[in-house]
Amino acid sequence: MIKVNFTSNNKEVYCNKGDSLLDVAREADIFIDAPCNGNVSCGKCKVKLIKGNVDTEKTRHIKDEEWEQGYVLACNTKIIEDVEIEVPSKLSSSMHGMKIEGSDNKKDKEIFDRAKKIIEENNFGFKTNIEKTYIEMDEPTLDDNISDIDRIERHVRNNLGYDEIDFTLELLRKVPQIIREENFKVTITYAKHKNKITILNIESGNKEDKLYGVAIDIGTTSVVVCLVDLHTKEVIDKASSGNAQIKYGADVIHRIVYSRKENGLKELNEAIIDETINPLLESIYIKNNINKDNVVSLVVAGNTTMSSLFLGVYTDFLRQEPFIPPFLKSPKLLGNDIGLNINNNAYVFLAPSVASYVGGDITAGVLSAGIWSSEKNVLFIDLGTNGELVFGNKDYMMSCACSAGPAFEGGGISCGMRASSGAIEEVKINKETLKPTLTIIGDNKPVGICGSGIIDLICQMLITGIIDRRGKIHRDINNERIRFNEYEIGEYVLAFKEEYNLESDITVNEVDIDNFIKAKGAIYSGASVLIESLGMDFSVIDKVYIAGGIGNNLNIENSILIGLLPDIDREKFVYIGNSSLVGSYLALVSEDAKNKLKDIGNEMTYVELSVYPTYMDEFISACFLPHTNIEQFPTVRSILSEQL
Amino acid sequence: MIKVNFTSNNKEVYCNKGDSLLDVAREADIFIDAPCNGNVSCGKCKVKLIKGNVDTEKTRHIKDEEWEQGYVLACNTKIIEDVEIEVPSKLSSSMHGMKIEGSDNKKDKEIFDRAKKIIEENNFGFKTNIEKTYIEMDEPTLDDNISDIDRIERHVRNNLGYDEIDFTLELLRKVPQIIREENFKVTITYAKHKNKITILNIESGNKEDKLYGVAIDIGTTSVVVCLVDLHTKEVIDKASSGNAQIKYGADVIHRIVYSRKENGLKELNEAIIDETINPLLESIYIKNNINKDNVVSLVVAGNTTMSSLFLGVYTDFLRQEPFIPPFLKSPKLLGNDIGLNINNNAYVFLAPSVASYVGGDITAGVLSAGIWSSEKNVLFIDLGTNGELVFGNKDYMMSCACSAGPAFEGGGISCGMRASSGAIEEVKINKETLKPTLTIIGDNKPVGICGSGIIDLICQMLITGIIDRRGKIHRDINNERIRFNEYEIGEYVLAFKEEYNLESDITVNEVDIDNFIKAKGAIYSGASVLIESLGMDFSVIDKVYIAGGIGNNLNIENSILIGLLPDIDREKFVYIGNSSLVGSYLALVSEDAKNKLKDIGNEMTYVELSVYPTYMDEFISACFLPHTNIEQFPTVRSILSEQL
Repeated sequence: MIKVNFTSNNKEVYCNKGDSLLDVAREADIFIDAPCNGNVSCGKCKVKLIKGNVDTEKTRHIKDEEWEQGYVLACNTKIIEDVEIEVPSKLSSSMHGMKIEGSDNKKDKEIFDRAKKIIEENNFGFKTNIEKTYIEMDEPTLDDNISDIDRIERHVRNNLGYDEIDFTLELLRKVPQIIREENFKVTITYAKHKNKITILNIESGNKEDKLYGVAIDIGTTSVVVCLVDLHTKEVIDKASSGNAQIKYGADVIHRIVYSRKENGLKELNEAIIDETINPLLESIYIKNNINKDNVVSLVVAGNTTMSSLFLGVYTDFLRQEPFIPPFLKSPKLLGNDIGLNINNNAYVFLAPSVASYVGGDITAGVLSAGIWSSEKNVLFIDLGTNGELVFGNKDYMMSCACSAGPAFEGGGISCGMRASSGAIEEVKINKETLKPTLTIIGDNKPVGICGSGIIDLICQMLITGIIDRRGKIHRDINNERIRFNEYEIGEYVLAFKEEYNLESDITVNEVDIDNFIKAKGAIYSGASVLIESLGMDFSVIDKVYIAGGIGNNLNIENSILIGLLPDIDREKFVYIGNSSLVGSYLALVSEDAKNKLKDIGNEMTYVELSVYPTYMDEFISACFLPHTNIEQFPTVRSILSEQL
Repeated sequence: MIKVNFTSNNKEVYCNKGDSLLDVAREADIFIDAPCNGNVSCGKCKVKLIKGNVDTEKTRHIKDEEWEQGYVLACNTKIIEDVEIEVPSKLSSSMHGMKIEGSDNKKDKEIFDRAKKIIEENNFGFKTNIEKTYIEMDEPTLDDNISDIDRIERHVRNNLGYDEIDFTLELLRKVPQIIREENFKVTITYAKHKNKITILNIESGNKEDKLYGVAIDIGTTSVVVCLVDLHTKEVIDKASSGNAQIKYGADVIHRIVYSRKENGLKELNEAIIDETINPLLESIYIKNNINKDNVVSLVVAGNTTMSSLFLGVYTDFLRQEPFIPPFLKSPKLLGNDIGLNINNNAYVFLAPSVASYVGGDITAGVLSAGIWSSEKNVLFIDLGTNGELVFGNKDYMMSCACSAGPAFEGGGISCGMRASSGAIEEVKINKETLKPTLTIIGDNKPVGICGSGIIDLICQMLITGIIDRRGKIHRDINNERIRFNEYEIGEYVLAFKEEYNLESDITVNEVDIDNFIKAKGAIYSGASVLIESLGMDFSVIDKVYIAGGIGNNLNIENSILIGLLPDIDREKFVYIGNSSLVGSYLALVSEDAKNKLKDIGNEMTYVELSVYPTYMDEFISACFLPHTNIEQFPTVRSILSEQL
């Protein structure tokens, strides 16, 4: 056995000669970001060899200077003897998001207000089918010696008007002792059905006030958990972190591939349940002094792959033509079924998916955006790890998925990160000095750049003439922030390490820009084909809702300028943030909204872009800044007159 | 740590100084019969000290000769140094029933025929709500790319006529791979509801023929498992063994007391599920080449305590006034909920209980006996570990429980055993020589005596003048088979060890006889008070059904002679064996019968004997052979003229 000492993590583990360093790190639960899942293509898993020799190769991701310092790609390195390895902190949890972040009260308020509006506008009941009631039963005597369960049922029948009660075995086991703790005075939490109720929890004494639910958005990159008081329907707290599945791949395809490995599916399921959602819930419970048994309802929205992995369901057929998802509608689930850190009998509901690549995050998003009740034509764009689009109004809704990749959430960008503390979210570049002015989330020192920052950056690089319309850096610029490596790949320095006392410079290179252009091209061409397929064009759009974890400060003007969004009236654009979370919140607090969500799942049409012959051409044309055909961007034309 | 070597079991274990030998044996999973659960009162846990010293005391259960040989009571012995212990084989599984016994084809046939008659007479459907159907679905294409679950649902809707399908998560996880094994040709097993079905199993290809259910009778002493083909409704096989909970006490009270110990409830639950039912099922599966996943329905009948322990539900309030059971009606259960060795999604149904001491074994027994449809007055007597009685007809049914103790199943009798291989089931004593003629189950050498044998024996001892009407052995008899120990307790030798090459003599002593007389007195006086409470007497009885594990060769004449059964026309008596098993079989194969069983649970009245002022007097009068008041036994009077 060979010893591997991860010095930065204070962890020593043993492995066999020839084992991959990335696999060894994963086994040891050491987080190394590897979006391409070990394909030696993304270059993100760069670690530093401190001591010993390894079997590795220099790749284009490693600069000469780094190579001399001992940097290697973990996925491309085999262990051959005892070694010491340092995992740069930017690869570890603080950057890639396993740090739990708390609530932003202002944002919570907005979510709540926006959701309330949807409920009011549609005359939905602001109520769920879950209730909590304190009951005082008669104590048993020799003359009144019915069973404990029959006593509860009799009381329910006589006082609450339901004929029957249902119990899980787990609750039944607790009943005899709990009902005697305070002399047959108990509080029951129950789901109401037609003429019967299902008891979800039973507590001694009067505990009527404590009744909670959780809304969750499971993104491929980020996960947000939102604790709700089911009496007042108020958001009590919110917490978010990265999706711990990231270590198995940045996008759904890499994860599906990983799920086919031995135990892969189980590891992915544990990553989302045990390593992401449960710690988020725990942090919220501790902060707000909540007992998990009082959390009796949970609504989850995630894309089709995330929904499947959340349940530990085999996903590989999603990836293979004809791309068949295992399920779309939520099966009936209790908290216990999937090991969630909530009441074991809690009701768990998944927002329905529409197809393999249009999932519950989109139906939930559409629910919260209100397209289904809109007289006007709405384009809904979700800039998540994948890009999904919905176009329609109250009469029809068409959806499609664009293979945008994870660029909008920082994936596939060498210094990319999700829109969390330390992320550069706005960039302005001085035309003379080419020096950037950065706005950083949390006003901390910069760690990386998130989606809205990249949009700004590319737009500014284009306007200031650093890059051309193909995204290539002009070779003739002489500026300390522009440099080229041995492979002739150019990069722009957003932050020198000396400026902010960082471990290394924060840079964006031509490969990153190329990745981003492909992503924005996929979205634009997807929207274009989707609307064209109905015989219309962008002029019919009345409203564009932009959702996703791209960052709150999405600059619409810049987004149009680089050709991510169509060049139409700016007034029509609204950034609606995490609409998936808002949608799951709605389904959590309103049974009517939950039913509407089910309808949306059934009624939305899925358009498979890949079968549209024009799609590939449209995509290639869109992989330009803003577009090969500048006619489609009339207002941009004048701004970019210098570049044309 | 001190070493205890159980030489007869080839097991060495370690314990602390001062630990009870019985506890150490239990920890080591060594079966030592201890019906009184360590109260030093039954004397059954006698083991032999081979080497080393222990802290123990001689009790009345240990003869001088045994004491010299090293016999001690395990419950009354503390370990103080390394010892070697021999557990006599009669204490181990072969006698007390953990040996699994197979099916008796003739008996199975009888069960089946009797049940069939009940179904026919009442125009019940001989069908369940579970079906198994082979389906051939369309394979998915890019144009027909609905999800796997939706594909199954669509096929079910179009071909089987149900709108919806329900799945457990466990099945959902398997679906994508299973349906592709044979190109979307699968066999689904499902429970039918109004307009939807719940899928219980899914297999690739056509497996329509394999569809099984299990009926179980959980007795306090014995457990019988019956495998049924749900297509033909035929009994395929049967297996029985003792209830492994016996090691924690012979009767329900001792077990309830044990359940209050730390982990006690868990141990009792594991004893019935993991140590009794699952091994029985496994033995049947192997013998008949059955896959457990094809066992999709299970019906269990047991008394109220057994039902609770089967589910692991806290039982202690059953034992405390006002004697409240946790539940009566079966909760909704799947095989997985209780760790049964059947399909995880199998439906599990418990025969309903009526009160704390009239359980599902009685409602199932009453179902199979057909009292609920009888024009005539029926007395139903269950001679199990407890005694339960039902009296009634199609208009009403009254039930009560008698604290008969376990004597009818061999408990509380020093050489008693259940009616299984090696049990003496019939006894005749030669009036001159006092030598017995024994009929032994399985024609093996005798191991002990079962209920029917004890009835015969006591009757014969009475007729031959060995005992008087109080059950005391006449002190003036001079015969090698009659002897008295140092405490002046008399005993009769049924089998000298030399006669059959046994480890020790098989004897019945005055304490045993006294225990048995109390048991039969409890039954007789219970029946008497139950019928009296309606203002009637035994003369109104048209039929007496005798159920229970007392043995197939119950001698009615002898039972009347000793005052167990009332002295009425012998033609009225029918021994119906394990009616609880027959009842659970009925509920398994006929949904109508299952519904009737639920009705019986709701409609039967429970009479609490202890509140009847006359019951104690009646009981004391009945603790005589046949009764203090011989007038109640007119036909016995002449037979016993010598003794009167």
